[in-house]
This record gives sequence, structure tokens and C-alpha cells, in this order.
Amino acid sequence: MTDVSATAYPIDAVNRVKRRHDRGHYDHATVHALLDAAALCHVSYVIDGQPYCTPTLFWREGTRLYWHGSSASRMLRNLSKGEPACLTVTHLDSLVLARSGFNHSADYRSVMAFGHARLLEDPAEKHHALTMMVDRFFPGRTSRLRETTAQESKATAIIYMDIARASAKIRAKGVADDEEDYALPIYAERLPVHSIIGVPEPCPRLMSDVARSPDLAGYETGRALGDALTEAHARTYSLQR
Amino acid sequence: MTDVSATAYPIDAVNRVKRRHDRGHYDHATVHALLDAAALCHVSYVIDGQPYCTPTLFWREGTRLYWHGSSASRMLRNLSKGEPACLTVTHLDSLVLARSGFNHSADYRSVMAFGHARLLEDPAEKHHALTMMVDRFFPGRTSRLRETTAQESKATAIIYMDIARASAKIRAKGVADDEEDYALPIYAERLPVHSIIGVPEPCPRLMSDVARSPDLAGYETGRALGDALTEAHARTYSLQR
Repeated sequence: MTDVSATAYPIDAVNRVKRRHDRGHYDHATVHALLDAAALCHVSYVIDGQPYCTPTLFWREGTRLYWHGSSASRMLRNLSKGEPACLTVTHLDSLVLARSGFNHSADYRSVMAFGHARLLEDPAEKHHALTMMVDRFFPGRTSRLRETTAQESKATAIIYMDIARASAKIRAKGVADDEEDYALPIYAERLPVHSIIGVPEPCPRLMSDVARSPDLAGYETGRALGDALTEAHARTYSLQR
Repeated sequence: MTDVSATAYPIDAVNRVKRRHDRGHYDHATVHALLDAAALCHVSYVIDGQPYCTPTLFWREGTRLYWHGSSASRMLRNLSKGEPACLTVTHLDSLVLARSGFNHSADYRSVMAFGHARLLEDPAEKHHALTMMVDRFFPGRTSRLRETTAQESKATAIIYMDIARASAKIRAKGVADDEEDYALPIYAERLPVHSIIGVPEPCPRLMSDVARSPDLAGYETGRALGDALTEAHARTYSLQR
């Protein structure tokens, strides 16, 4: 179990940021903030020497990460034994156009988290996870839904991974050219990229008297997805305490 | 080498979409369109049994994928020998709020591409790749830049992977509840997520008479990033012919 009293993840050969080490961070606050601003991650695992990189929704609780899938999925059949895994989250913030090809870049914020992925089998823990799988995104929503059936619960495998090591890598400096290149008559810019919430599309088959529910209050059109996800995570986990 | 006359990738145990196989696609047109609409991918590889999931910019040329990094990076030191890898691209299109926890989902379009990653060493091929690394995103831009130095070229490792197998997985149906659940007084919606281009930030140190260059014409504020990237890819590779 990860030392939950720690305020940073331990650093070793696996998670040390080697390339551009000045961009590396290992403290819980930085790592967790980048995780909680995301809905989507990519999980890497290995079967017979072949690496797989699978996109999935996920969430964090303390120093534990959770994701899910059908019990039939390739990933879960293998990870259930406690397989080494790497879960990565990346926020792309800009494309950076410099005065040389070499200095073209991107601003981004990413986290790589390492540990062993395991199947969650304890019934009480699984019940809690099935709730948080929804409520982490939409605070309090599960209490308003049709209850999960035993068959649905059985068909939903929950995977968890205690973060043994993690690193965050952040580039946030826009154009950074070689000093002598600034004198060249070449156009350069930082081109921001935003992940935003669009116009909600209510289900066409809604009962006539059903209004948009309060669990969605933070998801407003035009808002940064990361901000809404961060707020929802904070609300849900403060409601828990 | 992948059979470039084929119109679809071969299917076997590695890339067959097992979970929700109705969402699987293997034809070049679908796979390539999803790749070309992205700047960012995640690459998985294995070192001493430990999987790594690394975010990076990438591009496609035919049935070959390219990405780059410093010669010093952990990934490249290992992949240069021809290591099994999986490169994944995911477009998150919505969060889907259903009437049951079980039917909560997301709309997405993803590609997993499998092959062996290798270091590009041929000087002429590397020169071409260093050009396309910029021009794939910004058509014709390299011709306007300060030339790449021999030292910069040496410091930039280019990795390539011929796609041996690939699968695309697409969910695009919004709310899909169990038939009997539509009669419940529960709010459900599809919450779209958009990745869009923000307001360009010209370098504050631009020479006074330098205007935004034509290679950036497709990158307009508010446009979907995927559309701009798709257009840039098509322009650059049609210019090539």
C-alpha cells in the first residue's frame, strides 16, 4: 500500500523524468490535480510481450486509481492477477510554432502513474466503486438513478491500482527559440488548444416533467472540461467525508 | 512491410475488438482518418516487464507512423532495436449520462495500432521525416524556417512503426438506456466535449513586419482541432505528390 501520509511519490529509475527533467514533478498535489482534471486516461499493460495501450474513463481516490470494463475484456482478464501497469493522463494545451523546426513543440501537462493493477473483488468495496464511477463525474447522481442490478454489477469489472510511483511532466512556456533566432523575420506563435463542454443534448425520450439534474450544475456550455471535472471531483470527495 | 495495396488491416487475436465488437473497424479509411485528426498519441512499450505509456506528437505517412524525441529518452534507447509497440489515439466526443449507472458511457473514436518500433537511421529518410514532423501540421512551413543544424538533427531521434495490425473503435450513439428505463422520471443527456483551437498568441518578440504565415490558414479560433489537423495532413501529403 502506498504511504498515504507522504506528500510526494518516491522517485526511482521507473518514474524519474529523464528527458527535460526540469519539467518533472513528483508531489501529490501536482500529480493529483492533473489526474482529477481528466476523464480519459490511457492504460498500458503487457500480454505475451506485446504492449497494449487502452483508452478508458478512470478516477482517483486518495493514491488509488480505478477504471472499469466488461469482465470479458482482454485487459481485465489479464490485469486481474496483479499485472504491472502504467496509467497516463495528458492535457494538450497548445501547439508551439517556433522559428526553427527543432524548437517546434507543444505545451502539455501529463502524469504517468505506475503500479500493479488488480481486480476489485470485495463486495462492499465494489459497491462503493460502482457509485463513485458515476458520482466522481456527476456529484450525487447515483442516488437519482435506477439501481444497479446484481447482473450489471457482475458484468462490470472494476480494476484498481495503488500508485507506487508517479511523475508529472509540464511544459507551459509557449515559444522558446534560440536567442539568435529571435532576430529572424519568421512568424512564431503559441496556438492554444482547449477541451471544452458543448451544448448538452437532453435525451429525446425524457419524461415530460424531468429537468436537468443538479449533479450537472458544473457542466456548462463553453466551460473547460478540466475545470468541471476538477470541481466535480472535489465536491464528491468532500461530500464523502 | 505492410501490404500497401490492401484496403484494410489484417485481424487476429492482437487487434480484434473483443469487447463491444460491433464498434470495431479495420479498414484503412476509418483507421487513417482517426489518426490524421490527431496531433497527440500515447505509445506503449515494455522495459524489463514494466509497461510504459508515453504521450507524444506523431504523424502518419501511408501505413507508417512516426514520432520523435531526444536521443536521450528512455523510450528511444529501447525502441531503437525494433521493439513491439502499440500506438493509440483517442478522440473523446461526449460524456453520456444514462438512467442507470450501468449505461453511463462516453462517445469516442479510438485507434490502436500495433507493430515494431524502430529508429530511423537512413540520412535521406531522416531529413524527409524532420520536414514532415513540422509540415504535416503546418503545410509548407519548413521552407520558411531557419534550417535545421546537423547538431539538431543528431539530437532528434525519429522513431517509425509500420502498422502491422490496427483497429478502430467508435461509439457514437449518445444515451442508450434499457428499454424499460425510458419510462423512469430520470434526467439523461449526451454532454458533448470539443477540442477546439483558441486565440493564437503571436510570439511577443516577432520582428515588426512579420505577419501570420499561410501555413497556419487552417488554424482558426473556434475551429475543431481535428478538422484543422485533417485538412493540414491532406494538404501536405497532396503537395508531396
